Amino acid sequence: MEKLISFQDYQFVLLRPVWIENHSLRMVDQLLLPLQEEILTLTNVSQVCKRIKDMSIRGSGALGLAGACGMYLAWLESGRSSTDISSFAEQIKQTRTTAINLINTVEEMQAWFFKNTNADESEVLKKVEEIANRQLGYELALGKNGADLIQDGDNILTHCHSGALAGAGFGGRALSSIRMAWAQKKKIHVYVSETRPYFQGSRITAYELSKWAIPYTIITDSMSGSLMRAGKINKIIVGSDRVASNGDLINKVGSLTHALVAQAYGVPFYVATSEHTFDAGLPNGDCFQLEYRSPEEVLNYQGVRIAPPDAQASYPAFDITDHKLIKGYITEAGVLYPPFSNSLKNLHTHRSN
Amino acid sequence: MEKLISFQDYQFVLLRPVWIENHSLRMVDQLLLPLQEEILTLTNVSQVCKRIKDMSIRGSGALGLAGACGMYLAWLESGRSSTDISSFAEQIKQTRTTAINLINTVEEMQAWFFKNTNADESEVLKKVEEIANRQLGYELALGKNGADLIQDGDNILTHCHSGALAGAGFGGRALSSIRMAWAQKKKIHVYVSETRPYFQGSRITAYELSKWAIPYTIITDSMSGSLMRAGKINKIIVGSDRVASNGDLINKVGSLTHALVAQAYGVPFYVATSEHTFDAGLPNGDCFQLEYRSPEEVLNYQGVRIAPPDAQASYPAFDITDHKLIKGYITEAGVLYPPFSNSLKNLHTHRSN
Repeated sequence: MEKLISFQDYQFVLLRPVWIENHSLRMVDQLLLPLQEEILTLTNVSQVCKRIKDMSIRGSGALGLAGACGMYLAWLESGRSSTDISSFAEQIKQTRTTAINLINTVEEMQAWFFKNTNADESEVLKKVEEIANRQLGYELALGKNGADLIQDGDNILTHCHSGALAGAGFGGRALSSIRMAWAQKKKIHVYVSETRPYFQGSRITAYELSKWAIPYTIITDSMSGSLMRAGKINKIIVGSDRVASNGDLINKVGSLTHALVAQAYGVPFYVATSEHTFDAGLPNGDCFQLEYRSPEEVLNYQGVRIAPPDAQASYPAFDITDHKLIKGYITEAGVLYPPFSNSLKNLHTHRSN
Repeated sequence: MEKLISFQDYQFVLLRPVWIENHSLRMVDQLLLPLQEEILTLTNVSQVCKRIKDMSIRGSGALGLAGACGMYLAWLESGRSSTDISSFAEQIKQTRTTAINLINTVEEMQAWFFKNTNADESEVLKKVEEIANRQLGYELALGKNGADLIQDGDNILTHCHSGALAGAGFGGRALSSIRMAWAQKKKIHVYVSETRPYFQGSRITAYELSKWAIPYTIITDSMSGSLMRAGKINKIIVGSDRVASNGDLINKVGSLTHALVAQAYGVPFYVATSEHTFDAGLPNGDCFQLEYRSPEEVLNYQGVRIAPPDAQASYPAFDITDHKLIKGYITEAGVLYPPFSNSLKNLHTHRSN
């Protein structure tokens, strides 16, 4: 489980969200973090779907890996054949319709199974490993590009969790840059926006930063105004759930609010993303169908009721940050600057080559 | 306890935060709301100070009443004399150094006791009642002025709790306008910003709106960007903890963030305030010493730990909203518009007359 990787002059311990072990899918139960570190053992697709839906695993990179590992279970469950694999693929894809990475890896595995109908287990596992390693490569390259933007002494705000457990184990998107800058001995301080209602910031981002001994301070989401007004934050790096072709960002609700505050105080707002999160078919953010989650998540926390019994709430899981509010996209291929409709187009061209 | 008041064509049930009954101070324990409606019985100043400090009572108007009622207990505890009353006054004032209203009513009672050294209990109670009624009068007048700004069909965001239990029982500041508009049969909808870390919005604002059957939706604080971007909020009304003489606002942390979002989308940001919250001695918001509360309040909720054991957090209780972000101040004397340095000055002149 404690896999070490080397990159340039550094060695990093991986914090993997999901992997295959003894014909089972092992998954860190992120719902129990940071107080319990429990590793689930899942043996069929329906268990995996349940865990994706209840957010035991989340983050676009991790969901991508879960999709690949889930398809391995689907293959086992189909009697080590690809005959019935399409319905399993459909089930997994339906769990989180916003997670483009999940959909992509499921489809990649599905296509691979159709091509390799007689594959044995070692070949399937090699394919899953290939997907995991490719993603890890993206994270390391992205981290290097992002770290180049970070100065010694920077105070960086991040929102939600875009870290190792949301990725392939290094630092996901936003935290890859931070982890790499810290490895480069830059003295940085991270402000962690707690990210209501699910507290991904105070629970998981804080957990990872604690593991890596990177100094941080948790704030409630609405304190970013006060901190930026006081000049205490000079950079924002968030992750991305999806990026439209004009550069609009779809990310965890609250990202837009931080971006608007950043604009008011001239603080650069960066988005860490992976080229496979760009959605060329999405002309702009408004064409995106926002996912609404249960209002009960706003009204209760860990079984403790917060609001009156008859209270109504709303929980749009994401918001849309207009491309004009974004200083740059940090990707594994470099940092992209406006006009994004051009810089993203080149990246798409690069992909389709 | 269920006191009714009439105002213009309307009758309202009061929801009082604190009052005197049988030589004791009765106080709604706002920490237990909305799930338990417990009325505390306090018989000495030290109990009152403890309850102010632990936020069983909060909101500038309610703290003003608590100060007046607390001074009545101080008088009883001094053996029904004003001889030792100064040290009690000091104790009460030290509980919340930001609460100008608390300081004012304590000092008003203290001055009154010095003038009326031989007052009997009925005279003391009459003085306390006078302060409560004066404040109720402010709320009703303020509510009327604020309701004039509200249109049929408005969707109004409010932050934290600036309602009956934060005032004298009608609707405090922000909710007085909303309650009055609703009484005038305007179809409105209220978006309640939950207000981390203490959830004053989802706990207490929602509780009051439920009592009055005014339709509302609770949102997490960082959703205001998404809602305003989608045009779902067309007005913001918040309360005020203190107002500087240039019009800068000191209010619950998060107010500034909502104001910045509102500016970006052209949504008017109103502040409901009472003339005695203006601080003529404070030239601007930056001269204000922000109160920091325990980081543990960010890291735990109702005994449930949210963050890693070693996590650090920050909890500035207030933030400073620049006067340029404020469309108008709703007061009992009318709505004040920029330039606030002039409009507030006139109000101060009016007060000193």
